[in-house]
Amino acid sequence: MRQAGRSLPEYRAVRGEGSILDAIGKPELAAEITLQPVRRYGVDAAILYSDIVVPVAAIGFGVDVAPGVGPVVAEPFHSKDDLRRLRPLEPAIDTPYVLETVRIVAGELDVPLIGFAGAPFTVASYLVEGRPSRTYAKTKALMKGDPSTWHALVDTLAELALASLRSQIEAGASAVQLFDSWAGALSPADYERYVLPASRRIFEGLADTGVPRLHFGVGTGELLGLMAAAGADVVGVDWRVPLDVAAQRVGPDKAVQGNLDPAVCLAPWDVVEAETRAVLRAGAAAPGHVFNLGHGVFPETDPDVLKRVVEVVHGEHG
Amino acid sequence: MRQAGRSLPEYRAVRGEGSILDAIGKPELAAEITLQPVRRYGVDAAILYSDIVVPVAAIGFGVDVAPGVGPVVAEPFHSKDDLRRLRPLEPAIDTPYVLETVRIVAGELDVPLIGFAGAPFTVASYLVEGRPSRTYAKTKALMKGDPSTWHALVDTLAELALASLRSQIEAGASAVQLFDSWAGALSPADYERYVLPASRRIFEGLADTGVPRLHFGVGTGELLGLMAAAGADVVGVDWRVPLDVAAQRVGPDKAVQGNLDPAVCLAPWDVVEAETRAVLRAGAAAPGHVFNLGHGVFPETDPDVLKRVVEVVHGEHG
Repeated sequence: MRQAGRSLPEYRAVRGEGSILDAIGKPELAAEITLQPVRRYGVDAAILYSDIVVPVAAIGFGVDVAPGVGPVVAEPFHSKDDLRRLRPLEPAIDTPYVLETVRIVAGELDVPLIGFAGAPFTVASYLVEGRPSRTYAKTKALMKGDPSTWHALVDTLAELALASLRSQIEAGASAVQLFDSWAGALSPADYERYVLPASRRIFEGLADTGVPRLHFGVGTGELLGLMAAAGADVVGVDWRVPLDVAAQRVGPDKAVQGNLDPAVCLAPWDVVEAETRAVLRAGAAAPGHVFNLGHGVFPETDPDVLKRVVEVVHGEHG
Repeated sequence: MRQAGRSLPEYRAVRGEGSILDAIGKPELAAEITLQPVRRYGVDAAILYSDIVVPVAAIGFGVDVAPGVGPVVAEPFHSKDDLRRLRPLEPAIDTPYVLETVRIVAGELDVPLIGFAGAPFTVASYLVEGRPSRTYAKTKALMKGDPSTWHALVDTLAELALASLRSQIEAGASAVQLFDSWAGALSPADYERYVLPASRRIFEGLADTGVPRLHFGVGTGELLGLMAAAGADVVGVDWRVPLDVAAQRVGPDKAVQGNLDPAVCLAPWDVVEAETRAVLRAGAAAPGHVFNLGHGVFPETDPDVLKRVVEVVHGEHG
C-alpha cells in the first residue's frame, strides 16, 4: 500500500516537518518509516520510502518537495540547453543514503522490499512544469514541439532510474516498482511514441537481475497494454478499470496489481469489507493478481480499517 | 469548444474580475460572451456561457465560484439534514437571466445554441467537498456510507438540471449538454449504481423535446457505454480513448464527440494540423462523430490556432 505511512500516528511522530527529501536523506529514519506499515498492517511486502525526484535532486537539478504542494523546481526545464543540467547518477556517491536505507530495511524484513523509482514521463513532467500540474500543458508542448530534446530528456531520466533501481537491487531490494503516476494524462498514441521507449530502457536494463518489475500509474486504463509491453511484469490498475478487463489488456504472462479505491476505506466497515471481497473475487479471474489499493492511502484513513483490509485479503475473516 | 472564451482578448475585455456567477447574471454580457467564439472561430454551434453550479446557487445553497479556484460552498453538504437546503428550481423566477441570455443568443445566431447544465454527480461533488477536489473522498464516503441520502441528493440535483434544461429549450436552445466533468473519478460499478439512475432521469425527462442530448466528462474511458446507456445521444470523449474504441463502447445509434487534446493547441502549427487531421480520420470510422477538443480550451491558447483548427475541420486547408 503506497503512502500507507501517511495515515499512521507513528509516522507523523517521527516524520517531522519539512521536505520529504530531508527524511529520505536519513537512513535510520527512512528505514523506520519503510518498516512501520509492515509492522502495523502485516502486509506481504514493503515499498521503499522515497520520492520520484530523489535522483534528479541528487544530481543537483534544483528540485525540492514542498510540504502540501509536491515537487517544485527552481528553474524548470525549458529547452535543449537544460539537458546540460542533467548528468548520470552514481548511486554510491549521489544517493548513499538510499542504499543504506535499503540495506537496513532488507536486513530487518522477512517480506520482500520493493525498490522505488520515478518513471521518465512523470519525472520529466515535474522538471518541465516546475510544480504539480493538472494539464501537463508545458510537458506536452515540449514533447510535441521539440521531440528530439524530449527524447534526450526522457532517455536521460531513464538512465537515472535504471542506475538507481540497479543499485537498490544490489543493496537488497528483491523487486522494483517504477512509478509513472501521471502517464494517464497521455493518449495511447502519445504514450507509445514519447514515453514507452524510455520506460522500456529501464525494464530491459533490469531483465538480467531477475527481480519482478512492477509499473504503476493512475488513470491509465487505455495504456495498460502498452505499460505491459514496455517490459513490466506486473501492471498497477486503479479502480476505474475492472480487474478482468485490465487482465485482458495487459495480456498473458503479465499480472495486474490493484485496485481497491482508497476512498472506499473512509466508508463504514461493512462497505469496505464488501468492496475488498469484490476486488478479491475479480482478481481471482486475473492470473497472478496482487491485491493493492488503486492509488495511495488517504492521510485521513483509519489505520484499523487498513489492518482489517489486510486481514480480509489474508483470509482471516469469514 | 468548451471554455473557448478564456483564450480571447475580447472575452477578457468584457468579462471583468469577480465571480463567473456575476457575469452569468447579466444577460447582455453572458450573451456577448456566448457569441464571441462563434464570431471569432466560425464554429458550428454555440454553447451557453454558464456554470454547473448556477441552479444550486440560484436556490440559495450558498455556492460561489472563486476566481482561480472554482466552486466553493460556505456550508458543505454533510448529511441528510442538508437535503432541506435544496428546493425545486423555478427557472422563470430563480434564473430569469439564463432564459434571457438564451433568448438573446438564439435570436442572433444562425447556428444551434447548446444549453448547459451540470450533472448530478459533479454538482454533488462540489456541494459535498465544498471546493474542487482531486480525490472526491467525502463524496464517495457519503455515497457509500449513506446511500439513501446520496440518492436523494442526486435525484434532487437531477430535477434541478432537468428543469433548467427544459427552460433553456423553451427559450430557444436547440440541443443540450450535460456536464459530468468529474464522473471519471468513479469505477464503472459505482457509476452504474450511484450516478447513472440520476443522470438517466434528466435524459429521459428531455426525450419528448426531441433535441440532441450531449453528455460530457473527462477520464471517462470505462464509463462511455454507461453514459450512453443513461440516455445521451452524443457522448464526449477525451484524448485518452481513440475514437474508434470510443465508438464501440458507446454502441450503435450513439455518436461520439471529441477528442483533440487541448494541450496540442500549444504546439507548433504543423503538429496541431497533423493531430487535427488524425482526429478527423479516426472520427470518420465513428458514425456521427462531432469534432471537438477533449477538454476545455487552455487560457494560454493562441486564438489564431483555434481558428485554423476550425478551418481544417471545415476542409478549408488542403
